[in-house]
Amino acid sequence: MAVSPFDHPFLSGLLGDDEAAAAFSAEADLVAAREFELELARAQGAEGLIPAAAAEAIVTALSGFVHDMEALRTGTARDGVVVPELVRQMRKAVGPQGEYVHFGATSQDVVDTSLAIRLKTVVSILDRRLASLVSALEDLDSRFGATPVMAHTRMQAAIPVTASRKIASWRDPLLRGRERLAAAAAKVTVLTLGGAAGTLDRFDGRGSAVAGRMAAALGLGQVDRPRHSERDGIADLAAALSLLTGSLGKIGQDVALAAQSEVGEIRLTSGGGSSAMPHKVNPVGAETLVALSRFNATLVSGMHHALVHENERSGAAWTLEWMILPQMAVAAAAALRIALDLVDGIEFVPGEDA
Amino acid sequence: MAVSPFDHPFLSGLLGDDEAAAAFSAEADLVAAREFELELARAQGAEGLIPAAAAEAIVTALSGFVHDMEALRTGTARDGVVVPELVRQMRKAVGPQGEYVHFGATSQDVVDTSLAIRLKTVVSILDRRLASLVSALEDLDSRFGATPVMAHTRMQAAIPVTASRKIASWRDPLLRGRERLAAAAAKVTVLTLGGAAGTLDRFDGRGSAVAGRMAAALGLGQVDRPRHSERDGIADLAAALSLLTGSLGKIGQDVALAAQSEVGEIRLTSGGGSSAMPHKVNPVGAETLVALSRFNATLVSGMHHALVHENERSGAAWTLEWMILPQMAVAAAAALRIALDLVDGIEFVPGEDA
Amino acid sequence: MAVSPFDHPFLSGLLGDDEAAAAFSAEADLVAAREFELELARAQGAEGLIPAAAAEAIVTALSGFVHDMEALRTGTARDGVVVPELVRQMRKAVGPQGEYVHFGATSQDVVDTSLAIRLKTVVSILDRRLASLVSALEDLDSRFGATPVMAHTRMQAAIPVTASRKIASWRDPLLRGRERLAAAAAKVTVLTLGGAAGTLDRFDGRGSAVAGRMAAALGLGQVDRPRHSERDGIADLAAALSLLTGSLGKIGQDVALAAQSEVGEIRLTSGGGSSAMPHKVNPVGAETLVALSRFNATLVSGMHHALVHENERSGAAWTLEWMILPQMAVAAAAALRIALDLVDGIEFVPGEDA
Amino acid sequence: MAVSPFDHPFLSGLLGDDEAAAAFSAEADLVAAREFELELARAQGAEGLIPAAAAEAIVTALSGFVHDMEALRTGTARDGVVVPELVRQMRKAVGPQGEYVHFGATSQDVVDTSLAIRLKTVVSILDRRLASLVSALEDLDSRFGATPVMAHTRMQAAIPVTASRKIASWRDPLLRGRERLAAAAAKVTVLTLGGAAGTLDRFDGRGSAVAGRMAAALGLGQVDRPRHSERDGIADLAAALSLLTGSLGKIGQDVALAAQSEVGEIRLTSGGGSSAMPHKVNPVGAETLVALSRFNATLVSGMHHALVHENERSGAAWTLEWMILPQMAVAAAAALRIALDLVDGIEFVPGEDA
Repeated sequence: MAVSPFDHPFLSGLLGDDEAAAAFSAEADLVAAREFELELARAQGAEGLIPAAAAEAIVTALSGFVHDMEALRTGTARDGVVVPELVRQMRKAVGPQGEYVHFGATSQDVVDTSLAIRLKTVVSILDRRLASLVSALEDLDSRFGATPVMAHTRMQAAIPVTASRKIASWRDPLLRGRERLAAAAAKVTVLTLGGAAGTLDRFDGRGSAVAGRMAAALGLGQVDRPRHSERDGIADLAAALSLLTGSLGKIGQDVALAAQSEVGEIRLTSGGGSSAMPHKVNPVGAETLVALSRFNATLVSGMHHALVHENERSGAAWTLEWMILPQMAVAAAAALRIALDLVDGIEFVPGEDA
Repeated sequence: MAVSPFDHPFLSGLLGDDEAAAAFSAEADLVAAREFELELARAQGAEGLIPAAAAEAIVTALSGFVHDMEALRTGTARDGVVVPELVRQMRKAVGPQGEYVHFGATSQDVVDTSLAIRLKTVVSILDRRLASLVSALEDLDSRFGATPVMAHTRMQAAIPVTASRKIASWRDPLLRGRERLAAAAAKVTVLTLGGAAGTLDRFDGRGSAVAGRMAAALGLGQVDRPRHSERDGIADLAAALSLLTGSLGKIGQDVALAAQSEVGEIRLTSGGGSSAMPHKVNPVGAETLVALSRFNATLVSGMHHALVHENERSGAAWTLEWMILPQMAVAAAAALRIALDLVDGIEFVPGEDA
Repeated sequence: MAVSPFDHPFLSGLLGDDEAAAAFSAEADLVAAREFELELARAQGAEGLIPAAAAEAIVTALSGFVHDMEALRTGTARDGVVVPELVRQMRKAVGPQGEYVHFGATSQDVVDTSLAIRLKTVVSILDRRLASLVSALEDLDSRFGATPVMAHTRMQAAIPVTASRKIASWRDPLLRGRERLAAAAAKVTVLTLGGAAGTLDRFDGRGSAVAGRMAAALGLGQVDRPRHSERDGIADLAAALSLLTGSLGKIGQDVALAAQSEVGEIRLTSGGGSSAMPHKVNPVGAETLVALSRFNATLVSGMHHALVHENERSGAAWTLEWMILPQMAVAAAAALRIALDLVDGIEFVPGEDA
Repeated sequence: MAVSPFDHPFLSGLLGDDEAAAAFSAEADLVAAREFELELARAQGAEGLIPAAAAEAIVTALSGFVHDMEALRTGTARDGVVVPELVRQMRKAVGPQGEYVHFGATSQDVVDTSLAIRLKTVVSILDRRLASLVSALEDLDSRFGATPVMAHTRMQAAIPVTASRKIASWRDPLLRGRERLAAAAAKVTVLTLGGAAGTLDRFDGRGSAVAGRMAAALGLGQVDRPRHSERDGIADLAAALSLLTGSLGKIGQDVALAAQSEVGEIRLTSGGGSSAMPHKVNPVGAETLVALSRFNATLVSGMHHALVHENERSGAAWTLEWMILPQMAVAAAAALRIALDLVDGIEFVPGEDA
């Protein structure tokens, strides 16, 4: 089954992105959650918060841990989050010392840290593609930059410009978007460790030391206080993703307009076929960029609503993030993938009146 | 992989709905698409638009048709829609008479009709659950309606009322929502048949007759003109879904507030566990209703943006619908499933000051 | 000062609508609020809930009532709603019998009823314009319907159709939109009378009789129970408004595309001038329709979020409605005004390849 | 008339902000537009692009320029933007040399630069209030930080924490929000000067020199290329505003929850009155913060849709920005104003079970 286009057997070919989607698979989440629990135990062992033997037993058992997915599904339906059942399974796997698994931690510590670990991967995918796309646009500029094309303002021909000017207006927002994404990502690719109410109440004052060890081991940043209920970082990342797809949507819209039969200032070397009209070359990639940009422009709103996070942890607002952010990230990855293909296939054709 | 919570191995236990999701599987889509092509051939054969033998060959071949999913995925990525490749596979399966498959039709005819067929199923699921939920609320009223509870306005205790008054304010919007959903669904569970530009240009004036036969066979309504570019019906359905989840979100919010430790006017017979605080009973269902309502309240916006549908068919606006509507429908189904569970587990407790 | 384009000295010329905006002025609101209190007193007098002399005194005093706007502003800032201070001023104006003003009623009764009264006006404006616009489109069809134009699918020329087909795809959603608007409006142009917690607790069982008298006098519908916390009706009206502007936005988008310099299938007899390029005729009306449609498609989301209305009255959710609905209604009125102008100025020109 | 709460005679007392709204008045816009034209002439005179005498005549005439608002309104309705008519009035005021007014510039240069000038003012208002609010929270912490309160997760009592922990979770997002706002503002408080198609085609290679002079005189940043169609900066600012109101909405939500009659961990020294229940103290400010946050979380979506800006200038997308951004900025200013009042009136009361 596949309700979302990103998980869909054939729609994902158009709208999805295998590489980015992998980071949002249940498997990837569970691997990262295991890393969290494992490094927690290791750090707590080192700091003497749990017996060294327990830490060792946990590390050993979790290294080979195999989850029971059906029970995780049932547990998530009951508890609203996968962690209580996952920890139960882990404790069972560890055996006698199992009680020390997840010691002093809370579900949100695991879920948010797992997300942070996987966002690092996703952001690096996006960053790499952004670099490639900027290169591709520079390449396009070097091939066609001097071509005279018609500038259009308010949907009317204005005065001639060079293709170079148009290409620059596509590239520059991507350069800024890349910086914005990196800045936003740096703020959220951090360890979350707070315990029940964000105060590390069971850490005997060694919370910061434990967090330091864990952050280093997991390759994450460390922050003063866990941000269980402070969601500005994640909402800002969502905005950065939407700004990115919006900038790509603008490219798509421009390409679709310039490739119109009657305009013909852009020729696409490949395009979509029609089931009714075999002669057509549809600017599918360009249109899909517009669709993905409107999708993210829609979803970013939900992430900002999730800022109204009640008290120390809001089930409602937090769950809303889960429903939205992964889709926004994969939409961004797909848009970059499509834009790369699209730009490679663009040929500027001198405008008749330009 | 699972980017969306609705397709996710464990999150779907909380947020998804197997029954409604089945209608949005690729398989269900392809079955319905096959029905479309099969009934098109049958009707065109009967009306003499294609040779009777071709119609027969198509019906026979398509009855046992097996698609090549990988090729469908590649085709969708290229064409922006699955139909060109699907028709190619079907034509090949039919053999010599294959050229008559999809005769005079266009991709949107197939995709929109397939959606209509499956929406009938989904809406009937929702309608059935709405009826059950209204019953459950009436049952709750009969058990606890006389319980005095405190009315709260602007987050402050106001004056005592009976639980019955509160329950009525939960039920009535569902009664109206059920009507709204039925009315909206009736407008979109129709056959789409228009050909390349919506004019049935290759139907020799027998378009209406063909459409009549097809609509009857597929159990769909028939409309004067195909609504390729008129998307008010589908956007209205999206709004009906969001009004529904919004009304359920209000129930969830009220339950979460009344079940607060300090208020205790609602006791939940079951709830979620915490990984950090085993004593807690979290109102997971109630919170999830709020999350689902905000999800749909966010997404409905995108469906309304998709009304700005360029010319006779907009790849961008149409694709945007695919990304949003199925998720909204499954969110509505999930919310009803959860609300049913939640209401069954509610016990009103006389308020201290009420 | 004017933060919103609808209230702006010069932007309102483009984006606003004087006639519809009048219904949302503070003056109109206060007039309707006075009607509410006056009819409440009259009905309560007739039903013996308040002394006949008090009713008479209230009717007399309120007929000439002049509010103190500065105090209303201060009161609204303090109380979150204008009614407490407004009632205070009214009571003072009535004198000794003043205590019977607003007897048994609550702020939301006044505010929601005032809105209902004014929505009747707004919806009748919209309905009248919709009728005119449908006529204008039929007129356009009679003048240019036979003109061959190119159908465009996925931003590419497809096959020729007649202008009539295109005009029909603009008109039909308006016919449906008119029905939808009327249906949605009927549900919310009702009296709200509930008292503190919606139970008419101070009406001695004569609440329904009082409500019947008031509804008749105010020209509003009557409902079983006040919908203080059931906001599906008002959210549905918002959706109807957005479906309407969306359908108009589609017309605008089509016109802008067909009027492109390179396409020229639509000639606009008037358009906007440019400060830099005096030769241009910009399709300002068409573009503005797109802007207004995206504005309402954005705002409808907020009205659906407002469905999550806590308990018997949510200050947060209710206030959110005030910020959004009037703007959506005026945007719809403005879009109809602009569409009427636009359609009157359209000339179809036979497409070169059509 | 007042369609928007921000311009409304009494609702603006609750939801508006006089200081920020002033920056979005038509007057302020026209003053800034005049500055643009005046500094353009001065710089073009200095660079020899227009006769020195013309520059002098323009500076003199514009210094005392009085606009005709009614004609501006009519012109905006016709042209979609105020500038063509404004320039016509200015040229007339200048007289014989009037043709040199607005030389080589385009409407968007004026409108976007005017906005940038006024955004500087608005952002400095917001920044100042953010500083005050952070101080107020630190003050609150010093007074009540040690008070034990109950942490709540998923709407249930969890474990006791100190008020200090809660206050930190309110303050830290504001510190980050202040940085984010400053960073986003720096990118858009820049001069826009591009001429018809963003290429300064009539500036004889002295465009950059003219821009440098103007930017310095107007106190704005200078960028390589005008961002007529690159809207990521302004959409990013919108996101920063929504992140800010979202963080304030979270404070409001927490305060409303803690001030519930049954919880009572926060006592508000002032609150709103009720027209039906004089005993109530409603947390009006807290609720209004939630409403304003959801308003901006809704509107940010529209600003991101406006990223899909067609070609060198999109009337549709650009106009959409005008409808949204000023309201978002004033909502942010109002939220800060309200939050300051709210925080000053908070008293933490030791929780019974905390």
